[in-house]
Amino acid sequence: MTTCHYWRLDRHPHGNTDFSQYLTLCEEVLAPLGDGEVRIAVDYLSMDAGTRMWMSPRTDGYQPPLPLGSKMVGLCLGRVCETRDPAFPEGALVRGFGQWADYATLTPSLAGLEIVDDTIADPRQHFGALGMNAWTAYVGVREVAAVKPGEWLAVSAAAGATGSLACQVGRNLGAKVVGIAGGPDKCRYLLEELGCDMAIDYRSEDVEGRLATVEGGINAFFDNVGGPILDAVLPNMAHYGRVAICGLVAGYDNDAPMPGPARFDQILMRRLRVEGFFIPDFLERGAEFMPQLRQWMDEGKLSTRFDETQGLEHVLVAYERMLTGKNIGKAIVKL
Amino acid sequence: MTTCHYWRLDRHPHGNTDFSQYLTLCEEVLAPLGDGEVRIAVDYLSMDAGTRMWMSPRTDGYQPPLPLGSKMVGLCLGRVCETRDPAFPEGALVRGFGQWADYATLTPSLAGLEIVDDTIADPRQHFGALGMNAWTAYVGVREVAAVKPGEWLAVSAAAGATGSLACQVGRNLGAKVVGIAGGPDKCRYLLEELGCDMAIDYRSEDVEGRLATVEGGINAFFDNVGGPILDAVLPNMAHYGRVAICGLVAGYDNDAPMPGPARFDQILMRRLRVEGFFIPDFLERGAEFMPQLRQWMDEGKLSTRFDETQGLEHVLVAYERMLTGKNIGKAIVKL
Repeated sequence: MTTCHYWRLDRHPHGNTDFSQYLTLCEEVLAPLGDGEVRIAVDYLSMDAGTRMWMSPRTDGYQPPLPLGSKMVGLCLGRVCETRDPAFPEGALVRGFGQWADYATLTPSLAGLEIVDDTIADPRQHFGALGMNAWTAYVGVREVAAVKPGEWLAVSAAAGATGSLACQVGRNLGAKVVGIAGGPDKCRYLLEELGCDMAIDYRSEDVEGRLATVEGGINAFFDNVGGPILDAVLPNMAHYGRVAICGLVAGYDNDAPMPGPARFDQILMRRLRVEGFFIPDFLERGAEFMPQLRQWMDEGKLSTRFDETQGLEHVLVAYERMLTGKNIGKAIVKL
Repeated sequence: MTTCHYWRLDRHPHGNTDFSQYLTLCEEVLAPLGDGEVRIAVDYLSMDAGTRMWMSPRTDGYQPPLPLGSKMVGLCLGRVCETRDPAFPEGALVRGFGQWADYATLTPSLAGLEIVDDTIADPRQHFGALGMNAWTAYVGVREVAAVKPGEWLAVSAAAGATGSLACQVGRNLGAKVVGIAGGPDKCRYLLEELGCDMAIDYRSEDVEGRLATVEGGINAFFDNVGGPILDAVLPNMAHYGRVAICGLVAGYDNDAPMPGPARFDQILMRRLRVEGFFIPDFLERGAEFMPQLRQWMDEGKLSTRFDETQGLEHVLVAYERMLTGKNIGKAIVKL
């Protein structure tokens, strides 16, 4: 009999700290697999801001709220250790939406489970340059924000997992990139490692004022946060600019929706296109994105820094670090 | 020596009433035309909500504010009575941005001046089914909101000049149309004359609640007003819906920008595309739109009701009627 350890959602959290008030580390004896199910011995958990909304009781988000008493859902990387689906044989390296647990049990079609390349040097790249954050960056920058060579791309939460990849995708597509992040360490990372042309520290600088110095305005904006940063960018967009709304992290910890941008009128005045997108809608196109991402990774033009925490018992610490922006790069937990 | 009567902007208005506090009816002796200028004996003035912003001191609108002491700018229809541009001969019926005046003096290239069809039975249709409001409706519904046959199109200010045409364009393109307007007379107009499938009176009905009954949600929204109406529509949009921001009339009378929609988050949650557009950007494509508009008009499938006021001295009354939504259809002044 194998024991599984997992995090259970007991109460709806308020804010982005002290998650131990709301989730409990539990254990249970693993039940036999149901028909078609697969079990993964989890090596790494991905910490994603989007999962914060699953903890909320709001019913108007991406997906229905997670019922209280459920195992918390999250993206897992690991090896199949038990299987009742022949497409996922024992030992295969896989990635999909499982649980915050040392053993994740799932139905492949519901979990977006897929077998990933077992030959790359650092398997963590399946949460990095080859992962969902990279697809998000690629789709958002290339298709939604539709940046063209020579244009200016702005990226918020630019030192985070998705933002850092969005900066690099923009640069690789020939855009000039301005990254917006909090603190001098992150801004140094943007300029020295990610090749940004400009970095703005929103904690100490006047974002709107600095963006106003961008000649011709911002043509494309990849936004992860909404709120005051979006307000600072909108009046600095070039006419006919495109805004890709990837996330509204500034509002995920609220029980009520965050108010809309104070400068919404600029969408009309500057004839902007603002579009929300959700990467699971694009999962079927992963095979189309991967060759480009893989090539950039192999050429050293798409890198991810990992903010790695050790041990399932420290998941909440890692999650809080990520939600409060203490991480640089991709926040993961190694089990 | 001919005397010209015109309205002069003396102060920046507050609100949408009592414009006589801010504009003055003046007269002057007409000066000789400058090189390349054209003078029009104005038959009709078009009353357009978008011109309200020209009266404001705000510098972040479509165009720079009109300097105090200037003649108020507006769209005119009339005949060339003096000309120093051979492309616009005396006697030609023309339309363009002139002044609120009995004689409008302008430079054709700056005023979007064009010669219009002198053979149609009712020349007012150059401000109606063949006018700028019709182009706006056509571009907004067909290209920006990109409505497809069988989809649901919502239109705000649906009994107004642009809205009433947007409803008909939607219907002509095979969409089901829900019009939102204020008061029972307007709603009757939407259902009985414009062929809307549903009409919502925002003054007496719960807009959000009624929209929630639309099966499958709203696929395309042509918005003229912003504010609370937009807030009611966003949570009722279908996934991947398109919102064409044609106007934000609810905010034009404010000295500061109107706050953004409270339900901005739905842009992300429902993966919406929200796009501002400005019809003067499309003026060069008028020749492309006209055959379709003309055909619909001739077939009786695109009609305009006119809210006509007589006399230059009553322009402010007509303007206020239009801005406060007392008109049904297109507000014009006959000189």
